[in-house]
Amino acid sequence: MKGNVIVGQSGGPTAAINSSLAGVFRTAVDRGANKVYGMRNGIQGLLEERYVDLSEHIRNELDEELLKRTPAAYLGSCRYKLPEIAEDPAVYEKVFKILEKLDIECFVYIGGNDSMDTIKKLSDYAVVKGYKIKFMGVPKTIDNDLALTDHTPGYGSAAKYIGTSTKEIIRDCNAIEYKNGMVTIIEIMGRNAGWLTGASVLAKGEDCEGPDMIYLPEITFDVEKFIAKVKDLLTKKSSVVVAVSEGIKVEGGRYVCELSTGIDYVDAFGHKQLSGTATYLANRLSGELGCKARAVEFSTLQRAASHLISRVDINEAYAAGGAAIKAADEGDTGDMVILDRVSDDPYQCTTGLRDVHKVSNVEKTVPREWINEEGDYVTQEFIDYVKPLIDGEVPPIMMDGVPRHLYHCDKW
Amino acid sequence: MKGNVIVGQSGGPTAAINSSLAGVFRTAVDRGANKVYGMRNGIQGLLEERYVDLSEHIRNELDEELLKRTPAAYLGSCRYKLPEIAEDPAVYEKVFKILEKLDIECFVYIGGNDSMDTIKKLSDYAVVKGYKIKFMGVPKTIDNDLALTDHTPGYGSAAKYIGTSTKEIIRDCNAIEYKNGMVTIIEIMGRNAGWLTGASVLAKGEDCEGPDMIYLPEITFDVEKFIAKVKDLLTKKSSVVVAVSEGIKVEGGRYVCELSTGIDYVDAFGHKQLSGTATYLANRLSGELGCKARAVEFSTLQRAASHLISRVDINEAYAAGGAAIKAADEGDTGDMVILDRVSDDPYQCTTGLRDVHKVSNVEKTVPREWINEEGDYVTQEFIDYVKPLIDGEVPPIMMDGVPRHLYHCDKW
Repeated sequence: MKGNVIVGQSGGPTAAINSSLAGVFRTAVDRGANKVYGMRNGIQGLLEERYVDLSEHIRNELDEELLKRTPAAYLGSCRYKLPEIAEDPAVYEKVFKILEKLDIECFVYIGGNDSMDTIKKLSDYAVVKGYKIKFMGVPKTIDNDLALTDHTPGYGSAAKYIGTSTKEIIRDCNAIEYKNGMVTIIEIMGRNAGWLTGASVLAKGEDCEGPDMIYLPEITFDVEKFIAKVKDLLTKKSSVVVAVSEGIKVEGGRYVCELSTGIDYVDAFGHKQLSGTATYLANRLSGELGCKARAVEFSTLQRAASHLISRVDINEAYAAGGAAIKAADEGDTGDMVILDRVSDDPYQCTTGLRDVHKVSNVEKTVPREWINEEGDYVTQEFIDYVKPLIDGEVPPIMMDGVPRHLYHCDKW
Repeated sequence: MKGNVIVGQSGGPTAAINSSLAGVFRTAVDRGANKVYGMRNGIQGLLEERYVDLSEHIRNELDEELLKRTPAAYLGSCRYKLPEIAEDPAVYEKVFKILEKLDIECFVYIGGNDSMDTIKKLSDYAVVKGYKIKFMGVPKTIDNDLALTDHTPGYGSAAKYIGTSTKEIIRDCNAIEYKNGMVTIIEIMGRNAGWLTGASVLAKGEDCEGPDMIYLPEITFDVEKFIAKVKDLLTKKSSVVVAVSEGIKVEGGRYVCELSTGIDYVDAFGHKQLSGTATYLANRLSGELGCKARAVEFSTLQRAASHLISRVDINEAYAAGGAAIKAADEGDTGDMVILDRVSDDPYQCTTGLRDVHKVSNVEKTVPREWINEEGDYVTQEFIDYVKPLIDGEVPPIMMDGVPRHLYHCDKW
C-alpha cells in the first residue's frame, strides 16, 4: 500500500482490542503504509479532527508487546452512532473531507455491532460517492454476540478470567461451613447472550465441581423454582455457588434486577443499564431460606483483566487486525474480518471476510441445545466450543509488582 | 521431633494461608515428625474429631507446589471462638484428650486475631495443667491488622491484586469520555484498617496516574466534602476513580454503607457485616452531580485470587509456617511467628517470635502520618512500606486454560 491508514476503536473496552490495534499497525507498516493514524475516541474524535500518528507512540517492538497486554482502548473509545446517510449527509461529508485531507487509503474500525454499523454506512457512502477509500471492520466484544464469526476477539480472555475467578470463589466458599449453608451468586455480564455466563463452567475440572447452576439470559428465569432448587441443594451441601447473567429475565420479559428497584436506566443506544441481579437474588435467598447469601459481581474486572489474558484470544485479535489491512490492501471494502474455526481438537482457526451488511445489529445468542433441558446449566457442546478459546497465557510484563501498560498520558 | 504435629486454619480465607500450611508440613516432615495431622475446619472440626493425615493428601513435591497456589483454606476454616477457660473447662478437657490420643507434640494454628486468641488460651491451659504440648500461631490475614509483626502473610498477595485491578479499572475508565464525566468508586475490604485500600496506590506509576483519591477507615469520612471534591475534579478530567474502604465512617461513627439501609448485620464475632459503601456514594454522586457513576467491589476476589499472588508473600507465608515448627521443636510455646523487616531497599525480612499474649485482639491500623493531611491519599512512606511486599510472581500451574489447585474432594 502507498497511502495512509487510519484506525479507530469503538464500544466497550476489552482486554484484546489493543492487540487488534497492534496487528493493524504492524501489518500496515509492513505492507508499506506511509502513515498509520489513530483516531482518538473513534469516529467521534475523528469528527473533531483528533487523531495521532501512531508511529510516534508505538516506537519499537517492546511497545507493541506492551500494547497487546494493555486493557481497554488505547486510542480511547466512543459510543457515537452515525446517523442514517439520508438524515444527515453533512456528517458524512465532514468525515470524508477529513479522510481525503489525510490521504487515507484504508479505514479500520475495531468494535462490536454498533461499530460494524459505522463501517457499513461509511462504505455505502463511499461506493455511492465514488471514493476509493476501503473500509474494514475488526470484531471486538467480550459478549461474543456477533453473527457470522465463530467467536469474537476479546471473548476468550474474558472467559478465561471468568472461569478462573469462579474457581477461586468456589474454593473460598468451601472454606467455612455455615450452619444454615451459604449461597454465593456470581453476576456476569451479558444482556441477551449468555456466552460469558456460560464460561463460568470452565471452573469445573478434576479439582473443582464448578458452579452448581448457570443461568443464561436465553432462558426465562423462574425465581420461585430457583429458590426451591437452592433449598434442595442446601440439604446436600453447605456451599452453593450459582452463576447468573446480569440479563436474566422473568416471564413477561422483565429483568430480574428490575424486580427490586422498579427503575430502568437507559444508555445512549437505548440499552437498559443493568445491575443488582445477584444482590436481589441473594436477598431473596437469605430472607426466605435463612441461609447466608452473598453477591459477587465480576463487573468491569471481567473485561479489563489483561493480567490474565488468553494467548489464543490475543493472537487471534492480532491476526484479525492484520487481516483487515491485508484485505483492504488487496481491494476489499465493506467487510468485517471473521474468525473461522477449522477444528475443535486440535483447535485450528483462520481469519476470513464477510460482507458487513450481513453482520451488523444481529445478536448471536447461545443455541438452545447448548443449554440443558432444565435451563440451569450448559452442555458439553458449549464446553467444547469455549475451551480452546481460553488456552495459553500472555504473561504480563511486570514492573514494581504490577503489570506494565503502554500509556503516554502526556503525549496525545 | 519425635511425636506428631497437628495444624489447623481459621478465619477468613486468603491466597497465602495454604503456603503456610505447606511450610508447616514440609518442615515437620523434614524435622522427623511421625505424623502431620490437619484439623478439618480448625478447632471446631477438631472438637468433632475431624482430622486427616496430611501425608495422604500432600503426596509429592508437585502437590506441595499446587498447595502453595491454592486459595482459601485447604483444610477448611472456621469462625469458632474458644470460651474463656473458667467459663467452660469441659471444652478444654475435650481438646486435650483428643490431642493426647493423637500423641500431639506441636499444635500450629494459622489465622488472624481470633486464632491467636485460641493459641493463647490453649497454651495457658497447657501450662496450668502441665501438658507438654507446644502451641504456635502463624499469622494470616489480608487485612494486615495484626500488631507486633511488620506485616502479615496474605496481605502482599491481596495488595498485588488490588494494585493490578485498580490499574486495569483506571485504564477501562479512561476509554470513553462521558459528557458529564464518569466517577468510579472502588470498594475494598478493611473494616477498621486501611492497609488494603491504601494498596490501590500501587496502580500509580509512569504509565498510570493511580486513583484520584483514597479513603481509609482511619479517617472520619465527610460525604459533602467528598462530593465537592469530585465536582471540582470533574471540571479538570473526564474520569475520576476513587478507592474507598468498606469501613469508612462519618462523624459520630456510623458506617457510610449504613446511611442507605439503616440495617446493621452482625457476624458470629459481633463484627458488623458491611457492603454497599461504593454503591451508596455512586448513587449520591450521580444524583447530585449528574455524572455517570459506577461502583466496583473487589469483594471475595481480592482474597482468593491465587492466580496473581506475590512471590515475596507466598515465600514468607511458607517460611512462617516452617518457623513455627522449628520454634516448637526447640521448645517454644505460646508464641506467634512474626515477620521482621530488616530493610526496605533492598528488601530483607526474617521471621521472629512474639509472646501471643501481646498479640491477640489488638488491631494495627495505618499510622496517621502515612495518610496525607487532607485524609484522602496515602503518603510515600506507605508506598515504601507496601511496595516490596507485592514483588515477584508465582505463576499458576495452568491446566485447560485455568489454574490447577490441590483438591481431592472425594478423599476427606
